[in-house]
Amino acid sequence: MALDEGGLGRDLGASIRSASASELFEQARNGNRRALGRLLTLIETGGEAADEITELAHPETGQAHVIGVTGAPGAGKSTMTGQLLKLLSDSKHQSAVLAVDPSSPLTGGAILGDRIRMDHLAGTRTFIRSMATRGHSGGLALAVPAAVRAFDAAGYDPVLIETVGVGQVEVDVAATADTTVVVVTPGWGDAVQANKAGLLEVADVFVVNKSDRPGASDARRDLELMLDLSHITGQEHSSGYRAPIVMVNSIEADGIADVWKAIAQHREHLANSGLIDQTRASRLESEVRSRVQRLLGDGIDEVMATRPARQELVDAVGRTISPVTAARRIVAIVRG
Amino acid sequence: MALDEGGLGRDLGASIRSASASELFEQARNGNRRALGRLLTLIETGGEAADEITELAHPETGQAHVIGVTGAPGAGKSTMTGQLLKLLSDSKHQSAVLAVDPSSPLTGGAILGDRIRMDHLAGTRTFIRSMATRGHSGGLALAVPAAVRAFDAAGYDPVLIETVGVGQVEVDVAATADTTVVVVTPGWGDAVQANKAGLLEVADVFVVNKSDRPGASDARRDLELMLDLSHITGQEHSSGYRAPIVMVNSIEADGIADVWKAIAQHREHLANSGLIDQTRASRLESEVRSRVQRLLGDGIDEVMATRPARQELVDAVGRTISPVTAARRIVAIVRG
Repeated sequence: MALDEGGLGRDLGASIRSASASELFEQARNGNRRALGRLLTLIETGGEAADEITELAHPETGQAHVIGVTGAPGAGKSTMTGQLLKLLSDSKHQSAVLAVDPSSPLTGGAILGDRIRMDHLAGTRTFIRSMATRGHSGGLALAVPAAVRAFDAAGYDPVLIETVGVGQVEVDVAATADTTVVVVTPGWGDAVQANKAGLLEVADVFVVNKSDRPGASDARRDLELMLDLSHITGQEHSSGYRAPIVMVNSIEADGIADVWKAIAQHREHLANSGLIDQTRASRLESEVRSRVQRLLGDGIDEVMATRPARQELVDAVGRTISPVTAARRIVAIVRG
Repeated sequence: MALDEGGLGRDLGASIRSASASELFEQARNGNRRALGRLLTLIETGGEAADEITELAHPETGQAHVIGVTGAPGAGKSTMTGQLLKLLSDSKHQSAVLAVDPSSPLTGGAILGDRIRMDHLAGTRTFIRSMATRGHSGGLALAVPAAVRAFDAAGYDPVLIETVGVGQVEVDVAATADTTVVVVTPGWGDAVQANKAGLLEVADVFVVNKSDRPGASDARRDLELMLDLSHITGQEHSSGYRAPIVMVNSIEADGIADVWKAIAQHREHLANSGLIDQTRASRLESEVRSRVQRLLGDGIDEVMATRPARQELVDAVGRTISPVTAARRIVAIVRG
């Protein structure tokens, strides 16, 4: 698909492949989509280049409204997101989408399918990027904020983060957005599952998709009831916001304008209440914490290779000490 | 279901609820299933009681053969596992199963379904336990080995670990077993997906389930081909073992004896080659590493709350420093 790459020729492509992170960053800031794509690849790969991009981009951020979109597989998130992007493109927004699949190499197909459903966006300025992180689900904690930051610095607003499922990782990712949209489909099960998955606490907007199907109004009622009871069930929204429920038929684009209105209302609420600063500060704190964990984790390999740590392991293998004791002693070694 | 709990009366149940970890451990060693169930709950909860159980159980382990069973959802892992357990029960083995679902609260239903399909095991000495770890997929790295250890110390052999999907977490869990069984179904896709998911490197036994379906022999051929090419594609089995491929129809129990034979052959290979010690030592090392990470991670909360760390965060929020720099400085604080 041409969406990622822009319409650049071969020569410029070669120069981009050899460009430094700071050159790429400047080019991306000047609207070069291919340079932005390359930046995102560097971010996905991680390491020093990714850190350098974060250093460069961080001062240039804060404009983009970050929207998380989550919901069970099959809820029609991508179709809804595609329609929303179309609406945004028609109203001259330059949107970016980060499609995140933390779960498994086996769901790679879903993202491909999602991208194909977004074909009608070709030719618009929308930038769609998927990020699969096989074997590195912990890496999402660094790669997602870094990618959002690159989009923000390159002038994209809003930036949507779409996650494939509603596992804990997906919920965590979606919950770091300024505004979190949870998509459900008609049927009692979904509403209950949203409840179980801890989505009531993070949803700023609920979308009942496929509103033409039987059970759509039941789903709405179930959600309203759960929101009514959330202070009793201990699942209140983390900032006390009552998420509106929007009925949508994504295939017909019915209700999409209402979704955008609900998102804009929440954005306004964040701005007026001052919660936006708090939201972003806590997002940054959680990123810094993940970075601290990773830096400390990098040190663990060295520690585990030291002679005293090896001896603890040998003793644990020989069952003269337990793994609990071995770990405690190794941590004592780390802390000197 | 009665499988977890045994047939104990209410009074004994009450005494178990108030028993200490060491009392429960002794009772479990003496064949008390309810005490074992309670131990597993404590392990799942984590914390000090879980650590105490690990201290108690670790010296009493090393007998059980640990078998990981993994494969894509719908591959029929549970039906196959159920038939295998039946065979083991008929031949006087006292087996335990740990059904692990690290992925999502939404797949909880699958495990329930799996357990129901194991109904024909009621009345046998088989112990089946599911472990869901919503929000704590990192916790599996500690809870799974601790649960296996409890089963081992309580005299169960073999201990099966069944995972729900083939995401990275599931593959990691299955790969820590002595013998890893990968279940696939007929169809070209599955074999390719097994390849992608890194299963060739960890599979000690391949089971092509639903062998009565069209495409079963193709699936077998695809797997053989991938195994033939694995030294070229860089996906050789980690210890060079050539995994046999067993054709199974779990519904009819066809081929189940062959699965057990293939598992026993691999166990013999581990014993004869001395690889069993290496496998278990590296399993223990990986557990100790996870424990070290957790202990260091527990310290992160304290560090993040200190005044110097808060100042780094404030600077990062104000964009005078990047999150990369903030994290590095906080780690410098940790390391004093």
